[in-house]
Amino acid sequence: MPAPRALPSLLLALAVSALGSAASRDPARDQLLTREKAMRVGGLLVLEEEEQLADQRLRALKEAEMLEAAQTGTFPPSMHFFQAKRLVERSAVFRVLQKMPKGAALHVHDFGIVSMDWLVKNVTYRPHCYFCHTRKGTMLFRFAHPSPPKPEPAECSEWVLLEKVRKGLQNVTEFDQSLLRSFTLVTESPQVTYANQDMVWAKFQTIFLSLSGLVNHAPVFRDYIFRGLEEFYQDNVLYLELRTTLFPVYELNGTVHSLEWSVRTYEEVARAFAEKHPGFIGIKLIYSDHRFKNVSCIKKSVQTAMKLRAQFPRMVAGFDLVGREDTGHSLYYYREALMIPALHGVKLPYFFHAGETDWQGTAADGNLLDALLLNSTRIGHGFALSKHPAVWADSWKKDIPVEVCPISNQVLKLVSDMRNHPAAVLMATGYPMVISSDDPAAFGAKGLSHDFYEAFMGIGGVTADLRTLKQLAMNSLKYSALSEGEKKVAMEAWEERWHKFVAELARGPE
Amino acid sequence: MPAPRALPSLLLALAVSALGSAASRDPARDQLLTREKAMRVGGLLVLEEEEQLADQRLRALKEAEMLEAAQTGTFPPSMHFFQAKRLVERSAVFRVLQKMPKGAALHVHDFGIVSMDWLVKNVTYRPHCYFCHTRKGTMLFRFAHPSPPKPEPAECSEWVLLEKVRKGLQNVTEFDQSLLRSFTLVTESPQVTYANQDMVWAKFQTIFLSLSGLVNHAPVFRDYIFRGLEEFYQDNVLYLELRTTLFPVYELNGTVHSLEWSVRTYEEVARAFAEKHPGFIGIKLIYSDHRFKNVSCIKKSVQTAMKLRAQFPRMVAGFDLVGREDTGHSLYYYREALMIPALHGVKLPYFFHAGETDWQGTAADGNLLDALLLNSTRIGHGFALSKHPAVWADSWKKDIPVEVCPISNQVLKLVSDMRNHPAAVLMATGYPMVISSDDPAAFGAKGLSHDFYEAFMGIGGVTADLRTLKQLAMNSLKYSALSEGEKKVAMEAWEERWHKFVAELARGPE
Repeated sequence: MPAPRALPSLLLALAVSALGSAASRDPARDQLLTREKAMRVGGLLVLEEEEQLADQRLRALKEAEMLEAAQTGTFPPSMHFFQAKRLVERSAVFRVLQKMPKGAALHVHDFGIVSMDWLVKNVTYRPHCYFCHTRKGTMLFRFAHPSPPKPEPAECSEWVLLEKVRKGLQNVTEFDQSLLRSFTLVTESPQVTYANQDMVWAKFQTIFLSLSGLVNHAPVFRDYIFRGLEEFYQDNVLYLELRTTLFPVYELNGTVHSLEWSVRTYEEVARAFAEKHPGFIGIKLIYSDHRFKNVSCIKKSVQTAMKLRAQFPRMVAGFDLVGREDTGHSLYYYREALMIPALHGVKLPYFFHAGETDWQGTAADGNLLDALLLNSTRIGHGFALSKHPAVWADSWKKDIPVEVCPISNQVLKLVSDMRNHPAAVLMATGYPMVISSDDPAAFGAKGLSHDFYEAFMGIGGVTADLRTLKQLAMNSLKYSALSEGEKKVAMEAWEERWHKFVAELARGPE
Repeated sequence: MPAPRALPSLLLALAVSALGSAASRDPARDQLLTREKAMRVGGLLVLEEEEQLADQRLRALKEAEMLEAAQTGTFPPSMHFFQAKRLVERSAVFRVLQKMPKGAALHVHDFGIVSMDWLVKNVTYRPHCYFCHTRKGTMLFRFAHPSPPKPEPAECSEWVLLEKVRKGLQNVTEFDQSLLRSFTLVTESPQVTYANQDMVWAKFQTIFLSLSGLVNHAPVFRDYIFRGLEEFYQDNVLYLELRTTLFPVYELNGTVHSLEWSVRTYEEVARAFAEKHPGFIGIKLIYSDHRFKNVSCIKKSVQTAMKLRAQFPRMVAGFDLVGREDTGHSLYYYREALMIPALHGVKLPYFFHAGETDWQGTAADGNLLDALLLNSTRIGHGFALSKHPAVWADSWKKDIPVEVCPISNQVLKLVSDMRNHPAAVLMATGYPMVISSDDPAAFGAKGLSHDFYEAFMGIGGVTADLRTLKQLAMNSLKYSALSEGEKKVAMEAWEERWHKFVAELARGPE
């Protein structure tokens, strides 16, 4: 009665090959396959000859990895990313994805774009860096000279100079490792460390609290942005839209800069970066505030967003609300605030996080309705979208894409096996989407490639191919906040790189 | 920046209440909500006054449990069933579901319907029960007198009389516990015991191997069927369709009965059971064979199915292929065999397992296409259906329901958190479906109630209500293989019970 144990891999092998290629000599079956193929993300793209060769090569690599997975029973997209990361980075498919020009990163947050390693090894080694511990044990940082203002005892312990502490340590490496651990969610046994979503979000929030004192020191701030762009550029991402709360940036003497200063600094650093990095297109900001504030706070933020957008029309793309949806206020709760621009006849584009939840029928889940009704330009995550057929249909009609962040969703415990990520349904039906990485640095990822791997191998299944990838990359520019003119320039820069990438992939290993 | 830790439960509370009831005074929003409500499974049902009261009471219980879950961070549908079972059984919602007349169990297998406890405590204590161990350690059983034929050494160790072994034991309880463990998949740490799907399937298959020698002994066989019907009847299930391989039933002297004998015995036992149990409707069989056999074997089985259906038109509903799809042959592989009835102008209804996989684009995944093309009457599991938009659309047009077995899918590692079960999407769109339990005894479940709990609380989210449950119950009769006349009778029996159930629920606690 039981099937022999050796069979699985063999049959999976047959399966993978069979579906990859041949027609079945059954017209009804072929028609079904053709219809589904055409529906998928990228399904209508017609590949040029060289692209077809590249696609064949990529398929071969993918097939080999899936067969190996079936044989060994270890398929990285089925594993937690923290445990799969090493396997992913050994993957030939991953290396192709790294080289691939991926277009834009449309869903990334200001404090999650630079490898935390750099913060530890570079930023915390800069002079005048103080730290203290909150009652809950979170480390706060502050650059100051001669010393930071005495903290309220309820807020933090006494400030200590980091340089001095390091001098007194026997094992600095161990100390730096502990800093690194406190800057990321990475852990060997994520299932044990984070028993539920509350626990992982609690740690996630302390990370941002720790980082803010480091990153928002003016000299660090400039370097941090530059470094972030570099990491994405190295990963073949040419353009970014950053969700940012524009948390006040401060100088060594305690002076605090305005929001406008921060926007200008983003602009200057991006321009300086573009000068040194051919093909780089730039950045835009999505001004964001936290969804646990009350309505009157958010009213002010919406007004600030309108003002900033008027002042910096090319830099400030619009507005969003950030933070955990399940525990924060809903868009519906903020409706009065969010209607302000429309009431004043002002167009403030929204880029709402919505439906980053697996609780169906709650207020967080309801955010999808309001994101649609408030004409959100894109939807952040939209994890719950496929459970909302009416919103799904209408937002499709309005061509509102979802920004899918696979690793973030897994780390924050919305899904464990990427093959069950709800975006698989959206991808199969061809719903407009982009892949992004949310806060890659907090997850131990970099740029977009790790997330593209999960999307390509896990979410997309055996059927995702070069068409899928090309469409995802093109979508990232199409659905960006770039103006039509900027899009044209960006698409040309991307196409040039795409042709090179395809040629190299088609040529095969040297 | 971080939200206070006390907030989650509070906000979820607001959320749950808000969505349960009131209109939003925003016509566009109301319209979206109304559309989605109407689309859902059961969304078009109009509840009578008493049903509305019952629904309110059920919602209150559900809301209370979801709030508790949000507060404690333990939500049973997010946990593995083996670990959640105790919590489920303490749930007030679960007790309502137990009392609810659920209609029919349309996807259950012959060897998985009776609590294994009964097999250990009753069947293995019967006289003349021998056992041996295979080289891999699986226990095989055989009733015989004076003794079973000597086994091939490659197959099994020497036969030992169980009664004799028990007499020599100091701790019989411990021995019986170990028997119970070998008859179910239940374990305290399923994540550790079953690291991957191969491991859980391997154990699953040994269970059936062990059971076959026990259950297929003629006197046990009759009692087993009776007992199975009793467990489902006690769980308020009035009709079953059993997938059965009609494995030869044997007598103490080694005589082996024909398939026809087995079908007749099923018929007789069900009739005897119905006489003693008012309202019980009966059973039908779906003759099944294993999907690792070659095409010519399956050709014979299809012919056997045709013959049995001709002989027992009221008992044999049709044909299916069973066993793990990922490693077994595909429906496409068997197409020649499966076309035989059509070629002979015979209508043999199919009830194919299809898409019980999370590998998208493999042959197992392709089974969904062929189930549709072969006009399957229902689809077993259809776990992958939502990833196949064309099959989804066409099978909907043909009104082909899926048989959703939540706990089975979780135990066999297709999904971990029920809120992410792909049937959530199907349920939200109103795709025809029934809830079933596959092999409840192997999972430590009983009847259908545990699976209904997972479907109602997990898959259906906050939005699933009494309409959902009523539709699921009605679907189980509507999509059964009962004739139109039988359906009418069954529906009347169900309705009578439904009214009693609703009245009791509406009345509230005594």
